[in-house]
Parts: sequence; structure tokens; C-alpha cells
Amino acid sequence: MTFDTIIRGGTIATASDTFACDIGIRNGRIAALGDNLGTAGEIVDASGKLVLPGGIDSHVHISQPSGPDIVMADDFASATRSAAFGGNTMVLPFAMQQKGQSLREVVADYHRKADGQCYIDVSFHLIIADATDAVLGQELPALVHDGYTSFKVFMTYEGLALSDIEMLNVMSVARETGALVMIHAENYDAIRFLTDRLERAGKTEPHHHATSRPIPVEREATHRAISLAELVDVPIMIVHVSNGEAMEEIRRAQQRGLKVYGETCPQYLVLTEKDLEGLNMEGTKYVCSPPPRDKASQQACWQGMQQGVFSLFSSDHCPFRYDDPKGKLTPKGRTSFRWVPNGIPGVETRLPILFSEGVGKGRISLNEFVALTSTNHAKTYGLYPKKGTIAVGADADLAIWDPNREVTISQSRMHGGSDYTPYEGIAVQGWPVSTMVRGKFVVRDGELAGTLGAGEYVPRAKSDYAKPGGA
Amino acid sequence: MTFDTIIRGGTIATASDTFACDIGIRNGRIAALGDNLGTAGEIVDASGKLVLPGGIDSHVHISQPSGPDIVMADDFASATRSAAFGGNTMVLPFAMQQKGQSLREVVADYHRKADGQCYIDVSFHLIIADATDAVLGQELPALVHDGYTSFKVFMTYEGLALSDIEMLNVMSVARETGALVMIHAENYDAIRFLTDRLERAGKTEPHHHATSRPIPVEREATHRAISLAELVDVPIMIVHVSNGEAMEEIRRAQQRGLKVYGETCPQYLVLTEKDLEGLNMEGTKYVCSPPPRDKASQQACWQGMQQGVFSLFSSDHCPFRYDDPKGKLTPKGRTSFRWVPNGIPGVETRLPILFSEGVGKGRISLNEFVALTSTNHAKTYGLYPKKGTIAVGADADLAIWDPNREVTISQSRMHGGSDYTPYEGIAVQGWPVSTMVRGKFVVRDGELAGTLGAGEYVPRAKSDYAKPGGA
Amino acid sequence: MTFDTIIRGGTIATASDTFACDIGIRNGRIAALGDNLGTAGEIVDASGKLVLPGGIDSHVHISQPSGPDIVMADDFASATRSAAFGGNTMVLPFAMQQKGQSLREVVADYHRKADGQCYIDVSFHLIIADATDAVLGQELPALVHDGYTSFKVFMTYEGLALSDIEMLNVMSVARETGALVMIHAENYDAIRFLTDRLERAGKTEPHHHATSRPIPVEREATHRAISLAELVDVPIMIVHVSNGEAMEEIRRAQQRGLKVYGETCPQYLVLTEKDLEGLNMEGTKYVCSPPPRDKASQQACWQGMQQGVFSLFSSDHCPFRYDDPKGKLTPKGRTSFRWVPNGIPGVETRLPILFSEGVGKGRISLNEFVALTSTNHAKTYGLYPKKGTIAVGADADLAIWDPNREVTISQSRMHGGSDYTPYEGIAVQGWPVSTMVRGKFVVRDGELAGTLGAGEYVPRAKSDYAKPGGA
Amino acid sequence: MTFDTIIRGGTIATASDTFACDIGIRNGRIAALGDNLGTAGEIVDASGKLVLPGGIDSHVHISQPSGPDIVMADDFASATRSAAFGGNTMVLPFAMQQKGQSLREVVADYHRKADGQCYIDVSFHLIIADATDAVLGQELPALVHDGYTSFKVFMTYEGLALSDIEMLNVMSVARETGALVMIHAENYDAIRFLTDRLERAGKTEPHHHATSRPIPVEREATHRAISLAELVDVPIMIVHVSNGEAMEEIRRAQQRGLKVYGETCPQYLVLTEKDLEGLNMEGTKYVCSPPPRDKASQQACWQGMQQGVFSLFSSDHCPFRYDDPKGKLTPKGRTSFRWVPNGIPGVETRLPILFSEGVGKGRISLNEFVALTSTNHAKTYGLYPKKGTIAVGADADLAIWDPNREVTISQSRMHGGSDYTPYEGIAVQGWPVSTMVRGKFVVRDGELAGTLGAGEYVPRAKSDYAKPGGA
Repeated sequence: MTFDTIIRGGTIATASDTFACDIGIRNGRIAALGDNLGTAGEIVDASGKLVLPGGIDSHVHISQPSGPDIVMADDFASATRSAAFGGNTMVLPFAMQQKGQSLREVVADYHRKADGQCYIDVSFHLIIADATDAVLGQELPALVHDGYTSFKVFMTYEGLALSDIEMLNVMSVARETGALVMIHAENYDAIRFLTDRLERAGKTEPHHHATSRPIPVEREATHRAISLAELVDVPIMIVHVSNGEAMEEIRRAQQRGLKVYGETCPQYLVLTEKDLEGLNMEGTKYVCSPPPRDKASQQACWQGMQQGVFSLFSSDHCPFRYDDPKGKLTPKGRTSFRWVPNGIPGVETRLPILFSEGVGKGRISLNEFVALTSTNHAKTYGLYPKKGTIAVGADADLAIWDPNREVTISQSRMHGGSDYTPYEGIAVQGWPVSTMVRGKFVVRDGELAGTLGAGEYVPRAKSDYAKPGGA
Repeated sequence: MTFDTIIRGGTIATASDTFACDIGIRNGRIAALGDNLGTAGEIVDASGKLVLPGGIDSHVHISQPSGPDIVMADDFASATRSAAFGGNTMVLPFAMQQKGQSLREVVADYHRKADGQCYIDVSFHLIIADATDAVLGQELPALVHDGYTSFKVFMTYEGLALSDIEMLNVMSVARETGALVMIHAENYDAIRFLTDRLERAGKTEPHHHATSRPIPVEREATHRAISLAELVDVPIMIVHVSNGEAMEEIRRAQQRGLKVYGETCPQYLVLTEKDLEGLNMEGTKYVCSPPPRDKASQQACWQGMQQGVFSLFSSDHCPFRYDDPKGKLTPKGRTSFRWVPNGIPGVETRLPILFSEGVGKGRISLNEFVALTSTNHAKTYGLYPKKGTIAVGADADLAIWDPNREVTISQSRMHGGSDYTPYEGIAVQGWPVSTMVRGKFVVRDGELAGTLGAGEYVPRAKSDYAKPGGA
Repeated sequence: MTFDTIIRGGTIATASDTFACDIGIRNGRIAALGDNLGTAGEIVDASGKLVLPGGIDSHVHISQPSGPDIVMADDFASATRSAAFGGNTMVLPFAMQQKGQSLREVVADYHRKADGQCYIDVSFHLIIADATDAVLGQELPALVHDGYTSFKVFMTYEGLALSDIEMLNVMSVARETGALVMIHAENYDAIRFLTDRLERAGKTEPHHHATSRPIPVEREATHRAISLAELVDVPIMIVHVSNGEAMEEIRRAQQRGLKVYGETCPQYLVLTEKDLEGLNMEGTKYVCSPPPRDKASQQACWQGMQQGVFSLFSSDHCPFRYDDPKGKLTPKGRTSFRWVPNGIPGVETRLPILFSEGVGKGRISLNEFVALTSTNHAKTYGLYPKKGTIAVGADADLAIWDPNREVTISQSRMHGGSDYTPYEGIAVQGWPVSTMVRGKFVVRDGELAGTLGAGEYVPRAKSDYAKPGGA
Repeated sequence: MTFDTIIRGGTIATASDTFACDIGIRNGRIAALGDNLGTAGEIVDASGKLVLPGGIDSHVHISQPSGPDIVMADDFASATRSAAFGGNTMVLPFAMQQKGQSLREVVADYHRKADGQCYIDVSFHLIIADATDAVLGQELPALVHDGYTSFKVFMTYEGLALSDIEMLNVMSVARETGALVMIHAENYDAIRFLTDRLERAGKTEPHHHATSRPIPVEREATHRAISLAELVDVPIMIVHVSNGEAMEEIRRAQQRGLKVYGETCPQYLVLTEKDLEGLNMEGTKYVCSPPPRDKASQQACWQGMQQGVFSLFSSDHCPFRYDDPKGKLTPKGRTSFRWVPNGIPGVETRLPILFSEGVGKGRISLNEFVALTSTNHAKTYGLYPKKGTIAVGADADLAIWDPNREVTISQSRMHGGSDYTPYEGIAVQGWPVSTMVRGKFVVRDGELAGTLGAGEYVPRAKSDYAKPGGA
């Protein structure tokens, strides 16, 4: 047999198995796994390396409108380049509706932003901000049919927060069409109430961002979202869970037999609200929602992954430049935490952090790492078995890791559009040295090897998680 | 020593003790408890009887505006007469604000309705429906100061439901003033969503009232109310809990150390949603919110009382006539369950039902009965030690029970304004034969002995439940 | 009316009520409660004082055989004197069977020790160490009939520990006779295993007493005892619970509807295992089983009382002299913690510690204090309503407290047989200044006023806790 | 590339992935997975079939001494033949020590029974019944070193039950050597107590086998085993869990972070205690321990698998002939359930039952099926990656399934030594038509194709479950 490319001598891991063999690639797909596969156009030596399914980051924000005079730090080119350097072969950003917009327009607009601008593959979730009859009755079903099989709703943020009845209506469409609903669970009214009270007390520094949305704010919304989904009988994904109380709500729902899934993120494993207390406005670098919590919450998020409550580990990459009047330091943002753009960069650091803190420190197995960062994303969002594993027939989306490489994370090593990383100074062991999408290197031995525009848009099937025995 | 009245030879029970002795009454108060107390103007023979603290029903609706062309079946005269026949010496109805009303006006209006019209003592809770700045900033604090130390908020009902931020604002006033917030916990949006869906499907019969507000609707709102109270750090009372899932939310909060209290009612012990399935419109007789559930929920409500999760047992008396175009059978109510007035009569039957089903069947002790029906109400709502127990110095508010009397509940025995009882046909053992308020009989040996207007309005202190070690 | 004695002007508390009035005593019993009761042989001024039901300490060890060459520090005279100074009017020590002994003999022997030697009233629990057919089939039923209505079994200690089948057999007798089984729940095998391992490692200092019986040792036995009781369907009392994990087992059982009750003690509220780390052999002063734990366990024990999981607060008084070769410092005890006698004095300090730490610091109400220290003991062990409350007809067993008196606990103030108190140096506010048993002062204004032998033995009825609605 | 054998055109499933490709086998191992792998000595057509990792049944009893005059129905030949027909490629029976025996002797004896007598591969667990110093100190560590890396202890059965201290000692050896302890969790004393009581009441019919060991008997022992393991800090596997209460104990332990694993079996999914109520002695056909429970317990066992509490699904195959005086119907067994041999056949039906009831009915996914029946067994017991998956390098242990084949289970189709199957009459869809061990067919298209003696003994590495991130 001959192949286009053979990856030779690496140790391969899937969500359940670890084994050593060659990978034969033909036409961008994995054509064979075997001992000493024959010849190929190119033989890549992976001895001493891990060969893993490329990371899928199913929770990233790119080029998303973020308010007047605020600019997100990444466009599709910089975000997908940064992702590739972080071991990812696919990202799923959001096509965000704004009040008054047609969803079709939104999707067309995002395609215009993404087309020809990606280094790795992409697919879009929708964000429903204006649940009109037209959106619910026509646009959304049609878009699900066209492969936009997941949509996110917000329970907080001015202009985005849906009321409970709007959420119920969106969930009803998901039930009818087989789509998966992602939920940002924080109680908007409670945040407004606490923010007003803090501002009245003159407490406007960045760290009050955390004070203004304490754990019960998230736990409450999590329980509410679950209850609404229970009424409609529809699976949901609670995204970016930050603490044990919200995690327990998800666990209780799962134990009752509900199809409720959970996601956590790096900021909830290695940051805390103390990080928001930096001098001057340094704390704004860590302003994201929900905010990082405390050590006990970090421990709970690890348990959530270890015990299967959380099936996804994503970045919630949502980058703004720090030292920039259109980023974290807007004139208004300087007056109160209320106006600081919410979000932090993370698409490039997600995998090394989990690998080092998780696999390296014995908290999770290598197979669990693969499941949490790639396979489960593919199954959750209708990309499996094309994406998310190393198996014959799958796309040759691979990351080659040096498990021993020691790196101290710093902005100087990053390849995205932001001017800082919230993980500056964190030392990790294990790093993705090469990334390959559909058989072509995007990053090779730490150098950019891909071509802008080589990344493709991937329409999606329905979630495996809505099926019997799913997850 | 001489007394105005001596109750001789009965068995007395308080929330903790049971003992036999005479009760000496002077100037409307209990002046002595003792063996063979001396002489008195009148000696009442209570041998073979139980002498209990008069029931306090802290959850009743009287003469409350209920929508255009709907009339509540009881005014203060009929409600307090009916209550007295049911062994009660005090009721706490609601002074309900409507949108646009000043709270002061509301209170004045209710006093006009009640003054001179009561057979037993009364005090008012407030209902906050319009949480304006004036209400929150001035009226409410002033009214708390004047002895209106508890107020109720609704999470459902058109025109009544408060948003989460309004609830937080009301709770903040409660925290500042030491008042207790009572909460009707059902998710309004969810009920609207389900009601719309049912109506679209042509499911408009009375029993769909229950289908339109299933258990998760109540559990969700219960958890949300608790979370909001947790943010403000204020004690709350979740009223009329109907099932185990909502009960568990309260229990979890209590176990975390929160001051969250619960109340249940007779309809959740002896009725089920099957009762709403009556022929023709008979089901409307059982339309109340939350609706009666199932046998497992009844069992959970018993456990809630046995295990101390619920501290109050009230009637939620809210009477409408059945066969009346201004009652259950309005023209609109005939078209859909949505328009049937919510509420059932129960102030007269609350105590016999709990006595027979609870004490008689060994589910609760006699002392627990006293606590659940009288003492805890007095402590919860700032009436203790004037009301709620049999102790020297307390008002001589007493109910004399024949524990062996067998009665089949029927409308023909009732003394209120409704034309039916939802408990028709239920056989009980144990009945309150006489009721005495401040030393004067209101009912004596089953006959009316009191005078209209003898009942007084009682301003209240702050709740014991907001104090350390409360409850 | 005339009385032998009137207690005038005090504030009285029961398990549910607090009120101010006079107490009229006649023939050793409470004959009346009232405003300005008439005349009496003696008028005691209690103004500014609390008048509470005398403490009942239902868990004390007196004159109990404790191994060769070891002598318990208290006989009935010193123990009951010490108890009286601590505000108690009754204690319930154990009549402990040893292998080979007839229970009848044991009881007779204890009566010989107690008769004429008591300052306050006493009654005996039995300890079953040798569950022979004769004991189970004849002696035990006969003794229950004679008023020995509770018996304790041990799951640990050489010579005392019963096997599971022996416990089941004892429980079966309890079920048939209506007696209550008290259980010392620690896993004997686990303690032996850990003790052997510690000794092999040369870890023999007193604080390894705690290391040798960690929390899971107690939690396991608690769950096992509950399971055995569940199989036999019999109520049980888990005594001296020291931590949250064991408490949760009891709570889970209660929530399943089982009649499982719990007791905790002062050592689990104010001591920790750190106290066992004293220099030289000082740590032996705190050697008791289960051992004191940590701050989180203390908190859990408070919650156990606040949330009703624990109904009893006892001392587990089991005194040995410290500086005494027949006490804590036996020659063998000096070689390993294994041989240090288990137990600490506490009958005199139990009530002030709970009053100050509990009522004084707002953790429990005064009424809860009364319930936990007196009323519930009387109801649990068949002494109610003769004992355990202030009500007409009850024995005039009273403690008069000065709620403002500040005392620093020290051995120099104690009145028992030990030479130390483990609570040395703890400052409390509130102290029982006088104690009266059946109308006669035993301690008056801090001085001994009673007569040796005035305390009586009290046969007991069956536990209220075995009845429907009990506890 | 050439292969010995190619399996062509099947759909392959592992514990995480499902994909279609050829499997190339060389020297008994999987040499390649790929599209259209080249040539081979033999091409097996698997189109329309599932190709799964061969089942590993890690809980079977073969040729085990079962008391005087009782003979187990299977020797190694019949058991491994039956297993192969049921889709298995490996079984792990027990080498059972009896009191007084050297473990080395036991192992040698079992090897004599197994050598040359197996159709599929085998490995032995040890059963420790006599935990002498020699066994614990020398034999057991040496045997673990030699690849006997798991041992089972019993908490019940005369002659087998270990005391708690013996269990602790065995667990200590496991901790030191890295072995895994399997636990049969039922409380022996409780069973004896209940059995004695039933017999005294004349209740000796087979169905009282279930009455004599109700759920709390198993739950108690489960909690105790977990507690003992917690003290020693060692991973354990609770085998054959039959109900939700025991499952919850395991779940609670897992949530505390303990390495406690669980197994369930077909009898707990499709049988109930009603099955023991058959006429005459038919009930004996279902006598196994723990006994089958009820529908709610079946549901709980499904949830245990769905929610990851149980990682293994085994048969607990323990066959006795029914109509045989040396089987179920011994003379003594006819007198009381106490003497009926415990155990039922199941090695041949385990996989079809789970496939049909689980995968077929949407309760679990195909990948979960593979994990529960093969992969997790290999990882748990130190056989991975040689066994338990389809990956390059693994043994070619495969089962080819026809997912559509409809079969009604009946004894006439069975291939083992028993004369009945407890699953008689159960209709399933999906059946393993061929089984291949190390590249050689044992069963082919429903016919025996293997050779007696071709099955090998496999020494084992240590469990993956004792490692960080295990399970």
C-alpha cells in the first residue's frame, strides 16, 4: 500500500486506547493504522512523540461585535493561526445575532468574515438574541437543516439575555429539530442588582467584577436552565461552569436521567478571583464571565471532569487587547468594572494547560484528555466520526505532541491577536509541536506551515448527545 | 386567687409539653396554670377534652380583589366566623397592593374592610405588587415600623409577578427592616408557555390547570427564590409547598445553614390532581396554585413536617363560590382553565384534617400539631408570646377539642361564604368544639357565642425567625 | 392557695416556651404556675434569673469496672454532687454487665453502689456485654418490664464489643419489649488493625489514640448499626457522635423515615485532637472515644443540633484521675495509648459550655437548650412528663441560672472525684447557681444544700421515641 | 502488505469509536486497520456485521469446590466452550483457597484443572479464605509478582467470610503489591440471623433465599468494605451489585474521590425475586447471591452503567445443574433454601442480553457496550492493551456479531455443562456468530471451530485502576 503521508513511530491515543503504530494518510483521511505501513510520499518521524486527535475547541468567539468602540482582538486568520499553534485542528465560533437581525443575514455575515481566512477547519454555532416568530418558526429550523445544529442562548448581558419564555421557545425548536442548546447560565437581574449596589458604594475596581456575580448567581441560572429543559424534554449543554455548586446542579440532573451536559475551561482550573485584584487596571486582563473563583472551585472543576459531569473542556476564547482603548482599557471601562469587555484569550493555551496540569499531574488519563479536548466535542456537535478521533476513515486532523517539552507560557510565544495572555508565567510540560489538518501540516515543528484559507467550513450533523445512550 | 374564668380538668398541650391542670384566666390573659385553681366567675368543664392554643392561620385571603367580575366568597365576618368554628383564634390575611396603588392606601382600605367585622383576632401581611421607589424607600419601611412585619411576593400571576430584580429589591428592604418575606414560588414564564401550548392543543379542561404547572415549575422558582435570598442574606418563608422536589430545595438550603422556611397546606396532604378531573366543571372546585399533586407528593409533604423542613401548616384559604358566575364558573372560566379563579376554601377544615390524619394516625405528635398550627405561626410572624401558646401571660386564645368526635366533613357543616368544600366527604376523628379569644368564647359547644367586632387587629413585632437560633 | 415553696420572679423556659411567672411547689411537684401566686413556706427570689428544667445527663459512667488496677474517679456521691453543681437534677449511669455475669446480679450490684449515695435522682441503663440465651430470653425482658427500658451495646472494646449477630439479637429483644438500644459505634477490628500498625511503627504517644480511630471508623459503625436496626425495625440512639460524616449517616436514615436518633457531647464542640498532643502525658487528659476531631467536625456537631439530627446533648462523663497510677497514668498507659483508660470528666461542665457557646453565641435558642439538655432526655428514656419540663404535675426539678455570670472553668471549682477538667481555662457566661430536686435545694447560691441519699432511683416507662410521631 | 487473515468489510467498535475498515491479522495479533488492506491467507467477509473486541468475562466460577456432594456444572472445557459461543475470548475464573490450604497449592491445582482444557484464554483471580501470616506475608506478594494481580474476599458464606481485620490485612497486602481487591459484599451475620428466623418460622422455600438477604444486607457490607478500603487507601472492586442502595454507596465513595469501582450482572437487569417463587423447586434455578431484586433495582443497575458508577458487566457464572442431586436439588437443598447451592449459569448469555436490552433498546451506546464487556475488564485486571480492544498490536481476540439476528434464549442452544438457563425464553436481537482468539476461530458461523487446549493462560500486569487517572 502507498500513502500520501505516513506518520511513523508515534504513540497514538484515542478516547479509549493508547497504542503504537504508523498512520497512513491518503486524500486527507486516515487510510490505515498499522505496523510498518509501506511507502508514502512523505514519512514523518514521530518517534518519542504522542500523536493525538487534533484539538477541537468548540467554544471560541472570533470577530464578534462587542459594543460600540470595542474591537475583538482576533479575526479568523489570527484566531485559527493561534489555535493551530495550540494543537487544534478545528474551532467552533459563534455567529451572533443582534436584536433586529435576521439569522440568515448573521450567518452570511460570518461566512464572509471566515471564508478564505482560516488556517484550520471551522463551523459555526448560532447565538439567538432575538427570538422572534420568524426566527423560531422559519429561520432556525432551516439553519439546523443546513448543518447549524447548535445554538447558544444567554441568561445575562444587556441585549442578549433571553427571558425564560424565550428560552422555552428556543428549546422547543431544538426539540423539534434535534439541535443542541448551549446555555450561558448567570442570572442577569442578580448581576444588575449587585452591580448597582457596588457602584453606589463606590466599588468599581476590576475585581468587583467577581463580587458582582458570585457563585449563587451561576448556580441559580444553572438550575433554572435545567428546569426549563426538563419541561421541554430537550438536551442542553451548560457551558463554562466555574464552580462546584453549579457542577452539582448538573450532576443532580444527570442522576435524574436528564440529558444535561457540562463544559469547563482553563480559567476555572488555574486562575482565581485574586487574579482580578492586580494593581492599576491589570485585573481587567482576567475579566471574564463567569469569573474565576477560588481553590475549592478549581478542585470541583477537576472533579467534574474526572467524574464525567463535564464532558467538554473548551477555552471560551474571547480576546480583547489589554493596552488598547478599544480593548480592556476603554474610557468607560476605566470608570467601572461594569464596562470592561468580558472575555480572555485562550485558544492557544487550552491544551497545554490541561495536558500538563491534568495528564502530567495524574489527575486525568491521556485518554480522558483526548475525550475532553477533541472526541467529545466532535460527538457533541455532530462532527463525529469525521472529526475527533484517530480511526480509519476519519480526517487526518492530528496534533503531534512532545510530552517532555517544558515551556513557560508567555505572550511572546503566542500567535493570536491579543497583546497579553492571562496565563503568563505558568510553566507546563508537554507541548503540541506540529498540527496537521486533513493531512497537511499547519504548524510543523513549531513553525507555521499552513496556508491562509486552507481551513474549511464544516456543516454538521445532529449531536450524538441527543440520541439514546448518547454521551 | 380568683379568676374571671377557669377551664377545669382538660389536658393541655403546648409545642413541647402535655399535662393536665386548670387554666385560670383574668383580663383576657392566662393568669395561672395549676391543680385545682381556686374560684372564678365561670368554671368551664373540660374534662375528657384537649385544651390547645387556638389555631393561627397565617395564610388566608379575605375580600381580596380577584379580577373583573370575580368576587371572593368571604368577607371578614364570614371568614373569621368560619375560622372560629375550625378552632382558630387568629388569622393573617393579606393586604394586597395592585399596580399603581400606594401601600398606605391598601392598608387603610383593608382596615376599613376588617374593622368591626371580625369574630377573632387578625393581622395583615402585605402583598407587594408594585415595587416602586416610593414603596421600597418610604412606605414599606414605615409600615414595618408600624407592625406590618411580613410581606409576600409572587413569582407568578399576571399583574402580581415580580421580576428577579424586584424581588431582590424587596428582600433588601426586608433585610434592612427585619421583616420576613413570604414567597409564592412558581415560574410565571413556564406557566405561560405551557398554558399557551395546552390551549393551542385544545386542552382547556380544568384538570389542565395541573398540567400547566408541573412540579419543576415550582421547584425551579423555589430554588431561585432561595438563591436570591442567599445573595441578600435574608430569611424567607416559602409558602404552600406541594411536593417533594420543592421540599428538597428547602431542605438543602437549611442544611447549608440558610434561614429558609417552609409551609404546606391540607390540599397537599389529602387531595391529588385526579380531583381536578371531575365531570363537567367540578374540577374547578380544586383549582388552586400550586395544584394538588400525587400520592408521593403527599407523602413528601408529611415528611417535610415530620422532619422539620416545614414549620408551618396553613390553609391558603382563598374561597370562591362554585356555582356562581362570579366564582369558579365565570363565562371565561368555562372556556379554559386559564381563567378559573385560583383558590379554595379551607380555613375551617385545616385543623381537623391535620389532627385526624396527623395526630390520629400517628404521623405527628400532639405537640407537633400545636407547633405546626399555632406556636410556629406566632413565632414566625412576631406574635409570640402574646399568641401561640398556653403559658402564663399569654392571651387566653384557646381551642377545646373533643379528640374522639367523629365528623364527616360536608358543606352543610361549614360557616363561611363559599358554597362547597373541597374536602366534602372526608371522615375525621377529633373536632374543635369550643373556641375562646382573649378569654371570651366565640364558639361554644358548636354554637356561635361571639360577637361580630370582638376580634381585634394585632400589630406585630419582628419575626423570631430572623434572630440567631430562630426556628 | 398555699405552697411549700414559691420561686418568684424568674424567667422560665421550656422546650418551646419562655415566660415570666411564679412557680408554686407542693409535695415536691409543681402545683401551679402563675402571676403572683399566693403564699408559701418559703419564697425564693429568682428575679433576674432563668429558671430551667434541671439538666438530665443521660450518658454518664459512675463506679464502673474499668480493668485491673484502674479505678474510676467518681462514685455515686461525688458524681451526683458534681452533677448538681452543674445544674443537673438527674443522671443516668450504666449498669455494666461483664462476661459471665447475670444481668440481675449486675443491676443488684449497681443498686448497692447507688442506694443512699445520691444527691440527685438516678436511673440505670444496662450495658449488654454477654448476650447469652438466658440474658436475651429471660433477664432482659424481665428487666425492661421492671423499668430498665434502655440498654447500650458496644461495637468496640475488648470484652464489650458485640458481633453483628449479637447486636441483631439484642435489637430483637428491644423490638419485642419496646426498649431503646443505645449504640457506641466504632469498628473494633479497624481500631485493632490501626493500633497494631501504629505500635509496630513506634507511634505510642497519647495523640495516636486519635490516629487509631479516625472518622471512617466511626462512620462505618454508624452506618452498620443503622442497617442492623433497619433489618430488625427498631429505634436506636447513636451516642456521642463526634463528626459530620457519622452525623450524615444518621441524617440519611432519618430522611428515609427510620427512627434513628443521635447524641453529641461537649468534647466534640470545644476540643480537638490537637488537645491530645500535650507534652509528656498531658494528652491523656483528653483520651476518650470517639476522640475529639477538628474544627469542621465541631461545626458539623453544632449543625447536627441546630437541624434536629441530634436530639440529645450529654456529657459521656467517664472520669479518671490524671496524676494517678490507677487513673490515666497507669504503668501500662505510659507505654502506649492503647492502655490509657478511655474517658473524661464532664458532668459538671456540660450545661455551662452549651449555654455559653450555644445560647450565648446565638447558635441555639434557649428553648433548644432546654430540649437538648433535659426535655428530650426525659422523653427519650421514659421519664417524661415526671421529669424534663416545667409544667404543672412535673417534679420540681429545677435549675436557677444567672445568665450573666462569667466563669472561667477550672478544676478548683469542680466538685467531683477527678483531679482535672479537660475544659480548664474555658471562659463561659451563664452559670447554674442553684439546683433543686423535687422541691428541695441540692445546691443553693453555689453552696451544697442537699443531703447525701436524698437522690432517688427512678424506674422508667418506655421511650416516647418508639411511638408513632415520636421525637 | 500481507496478512494471515483479513476481516473485511465489518463495522468495528471500540470503547470510544465506531468505524468501518478491514482488520489485518498477523501472528495472532492485529497488524493493521485500513481501507482495503492487501492480501491474506484468508479473507473473512464481515460485511453487514459488527466486529467487536471479544468479550472478557472477569467473573466466572469453574470447577470450584462447592461443598460435600455438590458438583459445579462446568469444567474448563465446557465453560470456555460455552463462553466462546457467547462471544467471549477470555474468562477470569477464581482459584479458591479453602481453610488450611496453601495458596501456591491452590494455584497449582487450578492450573492442573485448566491446562490443556481451554478453548479461549484464561487467567485466575485468587480467593483468600484463610488469611494466615504465611499467606499474607509470603505467598500473596509472590503470587502478585507472578501475575495473579487480583484477589477476591467474601464478607459472607461459611468458611469463606473474612472478618473485618482479615479484610484490612488482605487490603494492606494489595496496597503494598499494587493488586486489586474484589469484594463480595453481604453481611454474613445478618444473613445468618435472618435465615435462622425464617427457618424457625418454617419459611424454607427457595424464594426465602431472597428474603434472607434483603437490600440493606448488601448495602451495609458495601459501605463497610468501602470504609475499610478508605482506611488502607487501596482501590477496590465491589462485584455483582444488585440494587440502587448499594450503587449509591459506591457513587458516594467515587464522588469523595475514592478509587471504588463497581460491577453488575445480567441477573440484576432481567430477573427479579419473583423468579424465585416458581412452583416446586423451580425457584432454585434463580438462587444466587445477592439475589435478583425488583424492577426499581433493575432500573438502578442500568443507571449505574449509564452514569459510570459501574465499570464492569460480568456474568458471575456459577453453574449447577438443576435436576441433579449434586446440583440444585440436593437432599438438603430440598429441606431449606439455606442449603441450595448459590449460583447460576450465564457466561454464554451475558453479552446477547446486554446487547439487546442495552444497545438495542437505546439504554447504552455500542461503545459503552464494548467498554462494559471487554475494554474495562482488560484495564481493570492488567490485561490491557494486549486484550480488550481492537487496535494495532493487540491480540486478535474478536467477536463478529450479527446485529439483526433474533434469538430466543433456550437451554437447547447452550453449550455449557448446566441443564438449564435462568434466561429461558428471553428474546434478544443481536448475536455473536463467530469468535476468534489470537487470530484463530473458536466459533465460526455458529459452529465450534476451535481446538480444546488452544486457550492459553495469561499472566497479568497490575490494574490500570490503581494508577492516577485510572478508570
